[in-house]
This record gives sequence, structure tokens and C-alpha cells, in this order.
Amino acid sequence: MATVTLLSDEEVSAEALAVFDDIRATRGTDFINNFWRALAHDPALLKATWNRLKVVMGPGEIDPLTKEMIYLAVSVANSCEYCIHSHTAAARAKGMTQAQYGELLSVIGMAQQTNGLVTAMQVPVDEEFKT
Amino acid sequence: MATVTLLSDEEVSAEALAVFDDIRATRGTDFINNFWRALAHDPALLKATWNRLKVVMGPGEIDPLTKEMIYLAVSVANSCEYCIHSHTAAARAKGMTQAQYGELLSVIGMAQQTNGLVTAMQVPVDEEFKT
Amino acid sequence: MATVTLLSDEEVSAEALAVFDDIRATRGTDFINNFWRALAHDPALLKATWNRLKVVMGPGEIDPLTKEMIYLAVSVANSCEYCIHSHTAAARAKGMTQAQYGELLSVIGMAQQTNGLVTAMQVPVDEEFKT
Amino acid sequence: MATVTLLSDEEVSAEALAVFDDIRATRGTDFINNFWRALAHDPALLKATWNRLKVVMGPGEIDPLTKEMIYLAVSVANSCEYCIHSHTAAARAKGMTQAQYGELLSVIGMAQQTNGLVTAMQVPVDEEFKT
Amino acid sequence: MATVTLLSDEEVSAEALAVFDDIRATRGTDFINNFWRALAHDPALLKATWNRLKVVMGPGEIDPLTKEMIYLAVSVANSCEYCIHSHTAAARAKGMTQAQYGELLSVIGMAQQTNGLVTAMQVPVDEEFKT
Amino acid sequence: MATVTLLSDEEVSAEALAVFDDIRATRGTDFINNFWRALAHDPALLKATWNRLKVVMGPGEIDPLTKEMIYLAVSVANSCEYCIHSHTAAARAKGMTQAQYGELLSVIGMAQQTNGLVTAMQVPVDEEFKT
Repeated sequence: MATVTLLSDEEVSAEALAVFDDIRATRGTDFINNFWRALAHDPALLKATWNRLKVVMGPGEIDPLTKEMIYLAVSVANSCEYCIHSHTAAARAKGMTQAQYGELLSVIGMAQQTNGLVTAMQVPVDEEFKT
Repeated sequence: MATVTLLSDEEVSAEALAVFDDIRATRGTDFINNFWRALAHDPALLKATWNRLKVVMGPGEIDPLTKEMIYLAVSVANSCEYCIHSHTAAARAKGMTQAQYGELLSVIGMAQQTNGLVTAMQVPVDEEFKT
Repeated sequence: MATVTLLSDEEVSAEALAVFDDIRATRGTDFINNFWRALAHDPALLKATWNRLKVVMGPGEIDPLTKEMIYLAVSVANSCEYCIHSHTAAARAKGMTQAQYGELLSVIGMAQQTNGLVTAMQVPVDEEFKT
Repeated sequence: MATVTLLSDEEVSAEALAVFDDIRATRGTDFINNFWRALAHDPALLKATWNRLKVVMGPGEIDPLTKEMIYLAVSVANSCEYCIHSHTAAARAKGMTQAQYGELLSVIGMAQQTNGLVTAMQVPVDEEFKT
Repeated sequence: MATVTLLSDEEVSAEALAVFDDIRATRGTDFINNFWRALAHDPALLKATWNRLKVVMGPGEIDPLTKEMIYLAVSVANSCEYCIHSHTAAARAKGMTQAQYGELLSVIGMAQQTNGLVTAMQVPVDEEFKT
Repeated sequence: MATVTLLSDEEVSAEALAVFDDIRATRGTDFINNFWRALAHDPALLKATWNRLKVVMGPGEIDPLTKEMIYLAVSVANSCEYCIHSHTAAARAKGMTQAQYGELLSVIGMAQQTNGLVTAMQVPVDEEFKT
């Protein structure tokens, strides 16, 4: 249950509807997921978030699937339930295999574990790692 | 400053030294970074951690640079200073360009932002994302 | 589902009931929310928590709505679902408008994003910021 | 020590320098803090971050000092050392008194504590808090 | 709802079933909890996780109940709902009394609170605490 | 470097000095660590924090060393550098052996790892774990 209502196309402002239109055109689907329907209460925040997301997750030097896996890894570390579901689904839609998913989980688990060990022991950074 | 001393090769047990040897052979370098020198106080923990890390970060379905970037992303979300330095260095050693690093930062920043927005609004998971 | 039962007025100890009475008197309502009913299994912890909360969230140099928004921001960063719901409701009860809520979300999202960027790059603190 | 160098005005690109100029004009100071000098390695990320920050922290329905305190609270919960220093300095520059700072710390401490208690007991959200 | 299906004994691979058998033998129960049924999609990850968990949570210098309480405390700080439920149940099964649970909650709450205060003020480590 | 100055005995208020006296009497040492010297800027917060800490970490159903290890585990999960140093020192002062420390690190590392795996897969809580 959200702390705000999820707005239908009929309930959003014209500014928000224009963002929904761009999401649909960019993604090639009529589907608008709940995150955007919740954000639509604040059209300026909706617009700024979508416009930035479109650039960040768009074509670049890192391939789309890798970007999704990085996004998912951060979302796991931050315990964001919705984000974990949406970016796991997105990664699968972009071709993540079960074997890759298993390795992704393994890397996340390993990082979590060594993050804890390093932090507990307050290990100083090696000179060799410094820029 | 660590909560434990960093052990030299001369100070570690035979079991720990065998792990150091394997790290050196696997990585093709004589350098042993501080994390392992701190962990060497507990040879069993050192050995279990290294043996697992070697498998997780070894060859597989996800390429080595992507694994490093995922590891780094988790370390950032967990505020692990040492891990951020060591895995940024490792990613660069594996070929991460400045442009890729910029995109990695952008994805991490975007994920952090939307994780916060989604969590604040407690957005319910769309049926479409469910397995 | 809690890891403990939620205690009714009939089930709590006399010490816990006295705390419930003070919550009711202080807030001017008969309603006792689930947090206190869960904490009531340990009357001393219940009492210490409520007594401190009453002081911290009471009159002072920061206005009550601002205190609720700060409380909510911390709860979002910590992914505390219950706290997010209870403090969003409390902020609204204290007059938070939809426009203010949108700005609060925007600040939280911005902080999350720049926290991630700064942490990823391990930016050193400027001399100008030091006390 | 950052994972990137801090770029001087002479070292940044024209696009980045234009952002520095806007920061200077907006803030009415010649000082550019380290965060922007680190971000300048990726002018597009620098520009997007600054442009959004300027809007989010600019005039609105929540007063500037309150925004800084919310930003600081999130940064504390995320253990972002740089952000804690920069936003504590910013809050003081915007008029935060010692008494307000003490209350801010008290609210953060209280939120952290009850976040932990609620999460530990997995307290279910009261119907009364639902939208 | 998990991002993967929970595999029954009939659905898992022979390698995963062998791990299930070891879990059953070690714990003296036929019950396999959902975590292992989810992990079974990746038998190597399942096996590595269980084999390490068995050692870490097995006999040693820290008694079993204390280990469970430490595990639970970390899980609370990380907001891991499943882990909180499973390790609260495990701690109770190993003899945790209601009074001990209340003290555990009190210590977690205190740590969360002072973690926040210390981090907010960026208190420098006393020389006396250094190794 | 703290965001506040560390107050000497000569600089604190009478109310704060009375708290320092109680810390000294309770701990049987003249040493006042930096946390209290930083908190002393707000005598009411100092007093409330110390008075609660004294009770929480005092005699009870969980032994003092176990309480310190739980406190340390939470501090690691929250990346609180100062708290990690102070509570590692306190645990050693209360008798934590190197072997126990190694096991504590192992449990923290295991918890961090499985917290990540469980969260990533969003494993539903087993009926058997419910109260």
C-alpha cells in the first residue's frame, strides 16, 4: 500500500500525461508502471526523474543489461522491494539468463560479505589503490 | 587504522601463507592487499573468503569487468571505503574507461535516487513484474 | 506480521498501561498505534522509548512539522516501512501539504543521489567546511 | 583521497566551466567545493546534477534551512561523511542555531532507534495510517 | 512473492537435493525453509552458502544463541524481513527468553541511536581505542 | 574531524559535568571518550543518552560481552567507524578472545551475505517462522 494513490491517465495533469506519453513512446509499450503513477502527484518531479532516467539508462558505453544489473545490485543493497522486482523483470526482459542471475546473486552476496568484514576491521586503503 | 594489525608474510601461519601463495598465483602478482593481511588473523576465515571469492569473481557468464562494476556498486551503497577504492582500482585494471566510469556513477546515482522515492511512497509491486 | 503479538489494553502490565495512558493524554486521542502495543512486551523499554520520544518530538526550536519530515527522511533512508507510514500520516496531520510532500520527496531523492556519487568518488572534505 | 582527481578551473572542459560559472553566480561566491570538481570529469553528469540540485534546493514550499536539515538527516542515515560536513556547514550558513542542531541530532537519534525497534519486531502498519 | 519460484524436492537437481539432505541431517528435521528452496535454482551457490553457514553457525567459541542474536542484529540493521523472522524463530528455538529478547531489542535500539549521533557529529576515534 | 568541537571538562556546563562524573564513577576510570565530549554541547541530549546507555548495557539477562558484540555487529552494518573502534575496544576489555572475534566476524559476514541473497530474491517468510 502506497502513501499516495496511484493515478490513472484520467486523473493526472496534462504535464504528467505528456511524460506518460514519452514513457510509452520510448519503451514501445502502453504499460505505465506504478512508480510513475505514484510520482505523477508531482508532475515536475515526475518529469525530472523520467528525463534523467531516460538518459542514464539509454545507449552508452555500458550495455543495457549491465546497467540493469548494476541498478538491481544497488536496489538490493538498499532493500528497495519495488525496485528489486522492477529491475529483475527489466534485466530478464533484456536477456539476463538464469546462469547470469545466479552469478549476479553470487557477486552481490560476496560484496555484502566482504563489505562487512572490511568495515568491521576498518582495513586501511593500500597505497597501490590510490589514484 | 585497522582494529587488527596487518600481518606480514613472516607473521602469518602456514595455513594463511598457503592462501597468500594461491592469491599470488591466481592474480599473477606478488602483491597481497591489506584486506587479506587483516583477515590472516583467522586463517579459516581467510581461506573460506578467498576460496569463495576466487570462484565468484572467476570466469563465468558475466564478464570480469561487469562483475567488478556490480561489486563496486554494492560497496558504494554500503559505504565501504576500502572496497570502493579496491574495486575501482580493479575495474580500471580490467579496462573500465572514464566514460564507462561516468555511466556507472550515473546509474548508481539514479538507482539511489529512485530507491529513495519508491521507498518513501511505498509503491506496490505491479502484477506485471511478478514471476 | 510481527515477531511478537500486539497487546491489547487488557493484556498489558500496569506499568505498560500507565504509558498507554500518558500517550493518550499527551496526544489527545484514545488511539494507541501498533508500535506501542508491540513494545509493551517489555514495559521498561516501552516507557524509556515513549518518555524520550515525548521530549524529542515536543515543543522546541524546530517546529513540529519539520521534526516529522526529518523523522520521515531518516525512516526512508533506513527503509522502515512502518515508520514511513506512521510519520507520513503524522506529517499530514500536522499540516504537510501535497506541495511540501513533493518537495520533501525531491530533497530525499537528491540527497540519496548525491550521497551515492560522493561516496563512490570518496570526495575529500573541503577545508572550508571544517569547524 | 578521492578515486578521481579534483579538477581545477584550468583543467575542466568548457561545458564543465559553464556549470562552475552558474554555481558561482547562483551562490554568490567564487568558491567551488570538491564535489563539483570531482564530478567535472563527466560534464554531462555534473550539469544534470547541478541543474537538478539548483531546483530542488531553491525557493519553494519548504524553507531553505529545513531543506538542509532534511538533506543532512538523509546523509547521516547513509553515512556519507562528505555530505554530512557540507550540509552541516550549509545549515549553519543558513542560520541553524546550536539549539536547533541539538534538536536535529535528537530527532535523528530517535528515528534511528525506533526504526531499529520497529524493524526488529516487524510491526504491521495500522489501518489508521493508510491513505 | 519471490523473484524466483520456490523449488520442491521433486524440482531440484541432484546436487541441490544432496544439499537439502545435508540440511535435514544437520538440523534433525525434514523441514527445508524457503531460502534454500529459492537458492536451489543455482546449486553451486546453494551448496557454497550452506556449507559455509554450517561451519559459521556450528560449534565454536561463541555459543549458538549468541550467534543467532548477532545474526539477527545485523539483519535488523539491514532491514532483511525474511532474515529477521527466521533468526528470531531460531533464537527462540535455541532458548532466547522474552527478557533476553527485550534486552536484545534495547541494545539494537541503543546502537542505532548512537550510530546516528556519532555519524552526524563525525566524532574522531580516541587514541585510547586504537590497536 | 568532528562537526563540533570536543569539549574539555573546563568548557562544559555544570549539567554536562555531572554526567561526566557519573560516567567516571560507573566505569571506574577518569577517561571520558570523545563521543561524550562532542555530545556535551547539548547537555540534555548527553544526559538522556548516557542514562539510557547505562541501563541498556548494565547487568541483565544477556551477559556484558554478548551485549558488546551485538552493539558492534549493528555498528558494522551501519558503517559507524567510531562505534566500531569503541565497541571493539570495549569487547576486548570485557574478555573477547581472538578466536571469538574471528567467529564474530564470520557471523557478521555470513549475515551480510545471506541478507543480500534473501533480499535480492525477496524470499517469502515461511509459515513455520510466524509467531
